[in-house]
Amino acid sequence: MPVVAPGLNRSARKRKLILDAATQAFLGHGYDGTSMDDVAALAAVSKPTVYKHFADKERLFYEIVLATTDPMSDLVRLVANAFLNTDDLERDLRAFARQFIRALMQPDVLRLRRLVIANAERFPEMGRAWYEHGFERALAALADQFQRLTEQQLLAADDPQMAANHFVGLLLWIPINRVMFTGVTDVTSDAELTHFADAAVRVFVRAYGRS
Amino acid sequence: MPVVAPGLNRSARKRKLILDAATQAFLGHGYDGTSMDDVAALAAVSKPTVYKHFADKERLFYEIVLATTDPMSDLVRLVANAFLNTDDLERDLRAFARQFIRALMQPDVLRLRRLVIANAERFPEMGRAWYEHGFERALAALADQFQRLTEQQLLAADDPQMAANHFVGLLLWIPINRVMFTGVTDVTSDAELTHFADAAVRVFVRAYGRS
Repeated sequence: MPVVAPGLNRSARKRKLILDAATQAFLGHGYDGTSMDDVAALAAVSKPTVYKHFADKERLFYEIVLATTDPMSDLVRLVANAFLNTDDLERDLRAFARQFIRALMQPDVLRLRRLVIANAERFPEMGRAWYEHGFERALAALADQFQRLTEQQLLAADDPQMAANHFVGLLLWIPINRVMFTGVTDVTSDAELTHFADAAVRVFVRAYGRS
Repeated sequence: MPVVAPGLNRSARKRKLILDAATQAFLGHGYDGTSMDDVAALAAVSKPTVYKHFADKERLFYEIVLATTDPMSDLVRLVANAFLNTDDLERDLRAFARQFIRALMQPDVLRLRRLVIANAERFPEMGRAWYEHGFERALAALADQFQRLTEQQLLAADDPQMAANHFVGLLLWIPINRVMFTGVTDVTSDAELTHFADAAVRVFVRAYGRS
């Protein structure tokens, strides 16, 4: 049986320092704007130490991008718990939409999105892995919920996958694209996010509700 | 009165050669992956000639990105003519959606989208200009149509701007993001594009139709 974890050992601690520094550097300056020297300096370790842990910049980049699909697990949990034993689906969809839009409009999430998109053509495996482990996983969790709600006759989504696509598209098309194109992460006020969430839910319920 | 245009003069011809070469280079290799040397070589002109026309790489990049909002005018025209004297709105929305999704899923349009997003944080004015002249212009034209259709009692869009956002979000969220993240421009088959278009219109009409 494992005893209480004695914390990370020295090597693992350095690895974590490097990963944190590299995340900051890549998100701030992009792939081309970041060198292994920058990462070493930011992590306050030597360059050979960086190379001991990561063979090259590309490997380091992959590792960081894929590590960021972990927070998706929080999102998937959020989805899974959103409509359990609901007795007012529209109200619960609205509460969920408001949380979901805020989770995806975090500045670091948006910066990561830009970083992945910017480099997807150059590193297609990285892009595909992020799409599958991040983007599609959240959609699949939502589709599961819509299927269950349809079985419970609370929703009428014959194609739950498409319904999940529609829900997210209604919700995020404008606020996400606004940030992606203008480069500013705080152009959408909190009140606007609520407005987008509520408007999306109104349309979704009209289209997929059981009336 | 001007006589028949005698064609571009030598300097304008060179300028056009440089712009075409730079477009190809930037779309293919990104901002950082393109040098003024590459552009000169690709255009088969000398480097001083490139600099005579464009002060620096950044200026050249701006010019190219903003030139690509011109094709948006075709899209705006497509929107403006889509529902004139309609006697079957759902059919005409479907025809329009199928054209619109194909126009935006052109490989070069998608590559440009990636290029703008990749550099939006670095060149925010460029991103904002593209967002306003490209993205928002097409949405505004669609909102005008939805307002007119609502006045004609063919649609019930109290907030035509939001209705336009929803129409486009329903239509494009999945196919565009799939390309943006995976880096592959031909992952979505023609049959799938039609399927996305028809599904989006079905939901839109259920939510915004007059029933």
